Amino acid sequence: MVTVIPVNWSLLLLGELAEVGGEISESLIFSALLVCATLIFLTSKVWEEACTWLRLPPVLGQLMGGLLLGVSALKVLVFTEGQAVINPGVIELIRWSAKADVLGASTAYTHQLIAISEGASNLGVIALLFLIGLESDFNQLLRVGSQAAVVASAGIIVPFVGGTVGLIALFGIAPLPAVFGGAALTATSIGITAKVLQELGQLQSQEGQIIIGAAVLDDLLGILLLAVVVSLAQNGTIDIANLAYLVLSTTLFVGGIAVLRTHIARAFEAVTQRLRADNGLLISAIIFALFLAAIANAIHLEAILGAFAAGIILSETPQKEKLLEQFQPVAGVLAPIFFVVVGAKTDLSVLNPANPDSLAGIAIATFLIVVAVLGKVAAGYLMPTSAPLNRLAIGVGMVPRGEVGLVFVGIGASLGILSDALTTAIVLMVIVTTFLAPILLRWIFHGVDVSAPRSSEV
Amino acid sequence: MVTVIPVNWSLLLLGELAEVGGEISESLIFSALLVCATLIFLTSKVWEEACTWLRLPPVLGQLMGGLLLGVSALKVLVFTEGQAVINPGVIELIRWSAKADVLGASTAYTHQLIAISEGASNLGVIALLFLIGLESDFNQLLRVGSQAAVVASAGIIVPFVGGTVGLIALFGIAPLPAVFGGAALTATSIGITAKVLQELGQLQSQEGQIIIGAAVLDDLLGILLLAVVVSLAQNGTIDIANLAYLVLSTTLFVGGIAVLRTHIARAFEAVTQRLRADNGLLISAIIFALFLAAIANAIHLEAILGAFAAGIILSETPQKEKLLEQFQPVAGVLAPIFFVVVGAKTDLSVLNPANPDSLAGIAIATFLIVVAVLGKVAAGYLMPTSAPLNRLAIGVGMVPRGEVGLVFVGIGASLGILSDALTTAIVLMVIVTTFLAPILLRWIFHGVDVSAPRSSEV
Repeated sequence: MVTVIPVNWSLLLLGELAEVGGEISESLIFSALLVCATLIFLTSKVWEEACTWLRLPPVLGQLMGGLLLGVSALKVLVFTEGQAVINPGVIELIRWSAKADVLGASTAYTHQLIAISEGASNLGVIALLFLIGLESDFNQLLRVGSQAAVVASAGIIVPFVGGTVGLIALFGIAPLPAVFGGAALTATSIGITAKVLQELGQLQSQEGQIIIGAAVLDDLLGILLLAVVVSLAQNGTIDIANLAYLVLSTTLFVGGIAVLRTHIARAFEAVTQRLRADNGLLISAIIFALFLAAIANAIHLEAILGAFAAGIILSETPQKEKLLEQFQPVAGVLAPIFFVVVGAKTDLSVLNPANPDSLAGIAIATFLIVVAVLGKVAAGYLMPTSAPLNRLAIGVGMVPRGEVGLVFVGIGASLGILSDALTTAIVLMVIVTTFLAPILLRWIFHGVDVSAPRSSEV
Repeated sequence: MVTVIPVNWSLLLLGELAEVGGEISESLIFSALLVCATLIFLTSKVWEEACTWLRLPPVLGQLMGGLLLGVSALKVLVFTEGQAVINPGVIELIRWSAKADVLGASTAYTHQLIAISEGASNLGVIALLFLIGLESDFNQLLRVGSQAAVVASAGIIVPFVGGTVGLIALFGIAPLPAVFGGAALTATSIGITAKVLQELGQLQSQEGQIIIGAAVLDDLLGILLLAVVVSLAQNGTIDIANLAYLVLSTTLFVGGIAVLRTHIARAFEAVTQRLRADNGLLISAIIFALFLAAIANAIHLEAILGAFAAGIILSETPQKEKLLEQFQPVAGVLAPIFFVVVGAKTDLSVLNPANPDSLAGIAIATFLIVVAVLGKVAAGYLMPTSAPLNRLAIGVGMVPRGEVGLVFVGIGASLGILSDALTTAIVLMVIVTTFLAPILLRWIFHGVDVSAPRSSEV
């Protein structure tokens, strides 16, 4: 038996060959990949430039580019479940480009295209967090550790309690969905915050390191909170065994890295210095980042935390500068895909004024947004320090909820405990905080830059 | 109506949440992506190092790594159509890593994983050819143009005629499948050749530029030949209209680039110098490469030729060096995926001695391999030049058939005109030339390096 695997080159589809079966969708996928990749990079770059000219953060441009390409506007990238409703114009373009004049083949490739976009997006945020880790400084993170811990804890407790109580008291929502809504207010989107800080050159400032440290802790605590809330929703009780497992695995992972990081960094250096083939350092670093991401994923932390840890560890090697130089372009290509996908998933149809759920949702959303912003800002002011730090910047840095809030919505929806109005409200809260935070953060740090240059800035 | 799109974070799969439906396969895909990406980079890097120590070309290591991960050995990456038969151990690893204790979910994600690998592989060869174009020199390519044209034409005619006549005369194969077999001998795999030349630092040598020029022309001529052969196989006649369209589109594309390249390069420079956001040059170059690849694809040339053309055009901008520095790591990450996938698709089960088709195939394969190698070497010696060029190196540089030969097999198989023995023979020919050429090429160029340093080398 000979198994032959045709390759999806355009070669396969020369004119009348279009009807040869299996290869049609492969050529369509390839064609769709080329068209969509061009559109993703072009749209996000144009919006990035527009944002830069308007003195807005470029990452907002990537989100806006995604919004334009996504489910809310042009429908080039549609991540809805079920059948993908892709823009007919784009389908025509892809078909023309692949020269596959076959009817009915339109949905065969869209799922795979979405899988590829989703995969690239996941690798994009992993690359970004690895880069952020590489640009961070473990010792500085340790120095700001206690402050970051307070910011993270307060930034979870204040919005969670405020949100839950407010939803019950002001809107008469039942305790369980109210707890879900409150929990959705807690988790900071580390990707968006880190990218904005990087763009502002504030990643190495003390404020920047506190924000990053707090966002990482926030993610770890958020995982525990999610486990508690889900367990409550499913069984009415808290699953102690699962919670203990999470606490233990988190502690072992973080502790293991804190203890072993110098040894791992030395081993990495020793191995990569012996490599002779091209790109030995770069590819070894990527293997290491993917490996720690897989480990973090396997023990139920987030993969991005593993990638961040890998970056932190390698930031202690003497090869840090060389690695940064080589990895920056790689992350520069991959990370925008993540933000475009986040934008593309943002569904503005929740704002439909003809829908009563939408109107009720907007009222709840207004409340949630206020709590979301004030809760994190309060955390900045609760931070114990005698240094003249920009507390407002730290609080605002924790504001974007990004896709983490949508995870709560997704789980809540699949458990059937969220009303349409509350779901709309949480989605709106996520959208507003995600798009608002980069703008606010830039204004706040920009004010600092101009009026009072500070020694802690790089 | 609120549409909520959950993100495929590991967050989604905390313990008992595993049964929440659609998110399972998303988390499995993400987990599989992390595990497989780690394995792809790790395996190819280990083999690359092994090859470097053995003084073999690193790209051979990437192919060997793919062979190990692919259908012939560990079955981590299986590109067969129908259900994917993935290594149960790897599936266990992926499931453990995703903590999705769900039976029956094993095939749901493998297709998407394959789609992602295939997409990354396609983007990898596009990135490689863009880099090769960027490292090339249009004027030098023009200077060697007539020689490259002879090498390309002779390198198509000699193996095609020799192969077709031999298959009919020696093995009694009918004319139509014999023509197909002969045609499968013609197309050089530009990816493998270019990578080996790059590794040897021979890309800018006169031999290197002749090989690249000839391989590009070879691809263009191969597309015309494929159209003719397929049209013969389907209708018994040659579709003149389609052929005329291909000749016209090829001419317009190549001519358009030759005429407009300086203007396009200047426009690119003018635009990118005005960009302010990060990575403006890099992302603009990628957009341009993807755009020309999509155009080439749309007019039925190969996408990689569009990417190569984009590289050639941008090699004339003053930003060439900066762009090379930034793009090299990107191609260094993406290109190995292409070679690993080529290796993974290589099915060594065609060598099963218990199968009579396999034995008959080996006899035919031996003949095809001899014609494949000698035909291209002859092309090197037929080249008109008075310069002391290494004709053997030029001929051997054209030897790898790579995946292009498999395209012929795939089409032949879907048209039902190839016997199992002939199919086996063509696949074996592709495998042997692909794995042999890098070794031979390195030996030949290495001999040159040591014995007689030449002025044309960079």
